[in-house]
Amino acid sequence: MRTFSADFLKQIGIQIFSACGASREEAEIVAEELVCTSLMGVDSHGVIRYLQYTDDVLNHRIKPGASITIVKETAVTAVVDCGFNFGQVGASRMVDIVCDKAKHANLACAVSVRCQHIGRLGSYVQKLAERDMLGIATVNSSKHGHWVAPWGGREGRLATNPIAYAVPTNTRPVLMDISTATIPEGKIRLFKNQGKLLPERSILDYRGIPSTDPNAFYGPPRGTILPFGAEQGYKGFGLSLLVEILGSTLAGEEISDFGYVNGFCIIAINPEAFCDIERFKRLMDELCIHTTSSPPASGFKEVVMPGTQEFNMMQKRLTEGIPIDEETWRSIEIAANKVGVEINIAID
Amino acid sequence: MRTFSADFLKQIGIQIFSACGASREEAEIVAEELVCTSLMGVDSHGVIRYLQYTDDVLNHRIKPGASITIVKETAVTAVVDCGFNFGQVGASRMVDIVCDKAKHANLACAVSVRCQHIGRLGSYVQKLAERDMLGIATVNSSKHGHWVAPWGGREGRLATNPIAYAVPTNTRPVLMDISTATIPEGKIRLFKNQGKLLPERSILDYRGIPSTDPNAFYGPPRGTILPFGAEQGYKGFGLSLLVEILGSTLAGEEISDFGYVNGFCIIAINPEAFCDIERFKRLMDELCIHTTSSPPASGFKEVVMPGTQEFNMMQKRLTEGIPIDEETWRSIEIAANKVGVEINIAID
Repeated sequence: MRTFSADFLKQIGIQIFSACGASREEAEIVAEELVCTSLMGVDSHGVIRYLQYTDDVLNHRIKPGASITIVKETAVTAVVDCGFNFGQVGASRMVDIVCDKAKHANLACAVSVRCQHIGRLGSYVQKLAERDMLGIATVNSSKHGHWVAPWGGREGRLATNPIAYAVPTNTRPVLMDISTATIPEGKIRLFKNQGKLLPERSILDYRGIPSTDPNAFYGPPRGTILPFGAEQGYKGFGLSLLVEILGSTLAGEEISDFGYVNGFCIIAINPEAFCDIERFKRLMDELCIHTTSSPPASGFKEVVMPGTQEFNMMQKRLTEGIPIDEETWRSIEIAANKVGVEINIAID
Repeated sequence: MRTFSADFLKQIGIQIFSACGASREEAEIVAEELVCTSLMGVDSHGVIRYLQYTDDVLNHRIKPGASITIVKETAVTAVVDCGFNFGQVGASRMVDIVCDKAKHANLACAVSVRCQHIGRLGSYVQKLAERDMLGIATVNSSKHGHWVAPWGGREGRLATNPIAYAVPTNTRPVLMDISTATIPEGKIRLFKNQGKLLPERSILDYRGIPSTDPNAFYGPPRGTILPFGAEQGYKGFGLSLLVEILGSTLAGEEISDFGYVNGFCIIAINPEAFCDIERFKRLMDELCIHTTSSPPASGFKEVVMPGTQEFNMMQKRLTEGIPIDEETWRSIEIAANKVGVEINIAID
């Protein structure tokens, strides 16, 4: 495990994505998103993706420089064609679009088409909250990632379909970013590689019988991931379906035609339309105090608001640096190498 | 257990609420909501509430005939003062308000103030879906009902805070209506009365230690209900907080001033703004077929879409009648008696 500064990792990212053909601005957006995600401790969606995105560019799945265009629009809605540009570039533009609309018209909802991997979903609602908007967002995935069983079923019909929201306060936003599935595929792989058993009620084997053996997921035949909620997994399933509907159906996409990674939906609500924004933020502060004033349950140190752990991790890693394991570091070197970027560790 | 027709129970409800001082129109709205809820098998929120609402009127908590007024409004938003009228009357009006706005302006969001018990949350999004809108709704409760612990805490800070959505198809809407808590208080009482143990991870005792003993919830000292999600209860907690924010904070309400039962938020999304409505409904039909085409998991007969069980139950009870237990029937007779309504069973 080595440790690098966020700034250093960001500079490498900018160089790699620039060498991929992205403009300086686009390269900065993508690198900043991935580094920020690593800073917040969500390592699975951070700089570990440099290589994947580089490969996607080299294989023409991601098209740097592609225009982001609004294909259908009203004062409060937009269908946005992300043109196979980096998902972060399209999703960030969609944040600007709904923010502008909600400033003028108080509400806004945008859905994407032809959007690649957008990374950390919470990032986009966080940007809305930082602009005094209440943001709610969902993202689904192409059929390729449909590893999650519908409740009562034993074949994959849904992706891990996360839901995020962020709400402004006078300090850091309240920020929730949750998967509607019990476990991401990457984590099952980790358990498999480490020879460990999965938590109960995470997966089904191919026969639809619950299993804690990670190999039962990979098969063949392949098993499935369960929607979250344990005995109440129908709740996770219902929420996951909403993510699928907002990400694909609302945009008018056939399930079978969905030939890109993500279907992103973002909703902005302007609190000013309901309640003076200063009052709203003060009430949010009070809600945070009220909620966290509960004494801890057995086995817990304190009650924290959604997002607190991630923001604390960011502070820590901004000071102490971001730990990068050898394999991830090697993948970054490979990405750089593939597009002719030389990494000079001495500068960090 | 006796069985009554929906029509008969509705007529009784109309007579009771009319005798409470509601107009014929208001009495019909309330009775129809409660009977429809019983028809769908959600007996805890159905005609069992006749007595509670009657008492609320007699104690001046519910004010039949009170005006429902919009106190703040834009083309797409509204803060609606429900004036302590029956919650069903206020919430139904809010459905009309967001539906009209979303027809003209494509999106709409309304929040309530001074709203009493609205009953089955799913009812209101169902009405939106029946008018070709995608509806999302939440409802929180006054501090009095804060029996749900925040994740990691041992004191109640939230209510059971349900989330519902409904989406139009060419047949019945997809209709999800879920609590963000593991179990309603009424069900814990049932387990207690029957001397049964609760499902695991439903409640904490007053020390914040998980328990399956329903008495550990009632104490004293009082325990708490856990947010849903089992080991991932932080997800249920995060969703519950969103319900609290949309129901109270957005409306500008202080937690401590919240002197009524429910804070209702309803969002209408007009699919026409994104995708031709006929295409949208066809894609929804395809999604339903795709989702339910998964063969069943072990222990299940089939995959069903959210809402299917409730709609099937409605069909069954419309034909066979609504079973009413003796205690509930007695409570209906008491309600009728309190406001001088005579029930003539012979007419059913």
